[in-house]
Amino acid sequence: MLIAKVVGTVVATRKDEKLEGVKFLLCKQLDVEARPTGGYVVTVDSVGAGLGEVILFATGSSARQTKVTENRPVDAVIMAIVDTWEVDGVVKYQKVE
Amino acid sequence: MLIAKVVGTVVATRKDEKLEGVKFLLCKQLDVEARPTGGYVVTVDSVGAGLGEVILFATGSSARQTKVTENRPVDAVIMAIVDTWEVDGVVKYQKVE
Amino acid sequence: MLIAKVVGTVVATRKDEKLEGVKFLLCKQLDVEARPTGGYVVTVDSVGAGLGEVILFATGSSARQTKVTENRPVDAVIMAIVDTWEVDGVVKYQKVE
Amino acid sequence: MLIAKVVGTVVATRKDEKLEGVKFLLCKQLDVEARPTGGYVVTVDSVGAGLGEVILFATGSSARQTKVTENRPVDAVIMAIVDTWEVDGVVKYQKVE
Amino acid sequence: MLIAKVVGTVVATRKDEKLEGVKFLLCKQLDVEARPTGGYVVTVDSVGAGLGEVILFATGSSARQTKVTENRPVDAVIMAIVDTWEVDGVVKYQKVE
Repeated sequence: MLIAKVVGTVVATRKDEKLEGVKFLLCKQLDVEARPTGGYVVTVDSVGAGLGEVILFATGSSARQTKVTENRPVDAVIMAIVDTWEVDGVVKYQKVE
Repeated sequence: MLIAKVVGTVVATRKDEKLEGVKFLLCKQLDVEARPTGGYVVTVDSVGAGLGEVILFATGSSARQTKVTENRPVDAVIMAIVDTWEVDGVVKYQKVE
Repeated sequence: MLIAKVVGTVVATRKDEKLEGVKFLLCKQLDVEARPTGGYVVTVDSVGAGLGEVILFATGSSARQTKVTENRPVDAVIMAIVDTWEVDGVVKYQKVE
Repeated sequence: MLIAKVVGTVVATRKDEKLEGVKFLLCKQLDVEARPTGGYVVTVDSVGAGLGEVILFATGSSARQTKVTENRPVDAVIMAIVDTWEVDGVVKYQKVE
Repeated sequence: MLIAKVVGTVVATRKDEKLEGVKFLLCKQLDVEARPTGGYVVTVDSVGAGLGEVILFATGSSARQTKVTENRPVDAVIMAIVDTWEVDGVVKYQKVE
């Protein structure tokens, strides 16, 4: 999994029939210091993530192992919302409630 | 998923028997600012995308989760046509009807 | 899928038992302008591609969706021979018969 | 597989229902000389790895081939703790007990 | 598949239960000119490759299509030992017996 921040929504009216009702969240990838890497990913959300939240996403066939994404043409899923992480004992990110 | 723009067609008369009748669309990948990244992908289309449209594509085994691509040697599928997206509240792309 | 050119053969006498009789083609990857990217891939061929031909290849589990590669430890397959492609109406490659 | 060092934990209270009780370990990737590459990966642990340990991780669908990760939206798993490795006869890393 | 050279062994006493008895070979990736790319991969061997040999490896779910790797958390397998390859008729590597 990698860490990313939800920064927006991708609106797509016309999509594969298996994707009816599915929303796409645009996420900017973060490095271990919580800085943007310049990369992004468009994800489907299985946990109710909101704009500005930092999340974990899984890719490939693993992205289809949630109820929301099962058997669907989806290769990236948000499967957790990050509260905090640390590197060598130093907190790099802390969610603000 | 990633965002890309359909820029052309790849014509291939000789192909695997499972690909009879399948069309290949050439797409240039876009970044979150809607600028070309320099990367490309050849896709199969499940939604009727046309030249110049901005689309979402899924890769890997997830690319085989549509009727058009099921059980076929295809690793990238267009599964949505993008209407618009925004980053931190700023619209980065808006489809022209 | 990505576009590549067949440039040679990789000879391997000793290989996994599931690969008996399988030939490996060495391909240089091309960009949308039909220029080599510097990358390469070793593929198994499902369509009878020859040296010098420009092809499409699929990777990952999708590479096992042909008769030649089914259930085999193969992660890249040539599934089409390219005749031509264009970008924004300009022909970038045309096969010479 | 690639080699990485466990440097911390990612805490995520809200996650997909299939991930209840699963812990996420943050790992920095190492090159063959045991130097950090700058890359990282968030993993699920199947072997009881601890902070500071050097590990092997597997990605993609292979990451779901352990009891801990089976059928879960997880794309990277720690499947071994590294004791030592060498390159051309020179030891590059040796675990300190 | 990609080409790599076996340069060492990764010793891991503690590993997932499905990996009992499995050995890990460290391989440096080669480009089409048989030069190291700087990249590496840790593989499981299905063909009896030895130190110094040049091999082909497959990744992802395809890496689990051998008897040695079936159903195991392994994402890279050596499935062939390379004898020779050529690019545009020029031999780039020849195994020394």
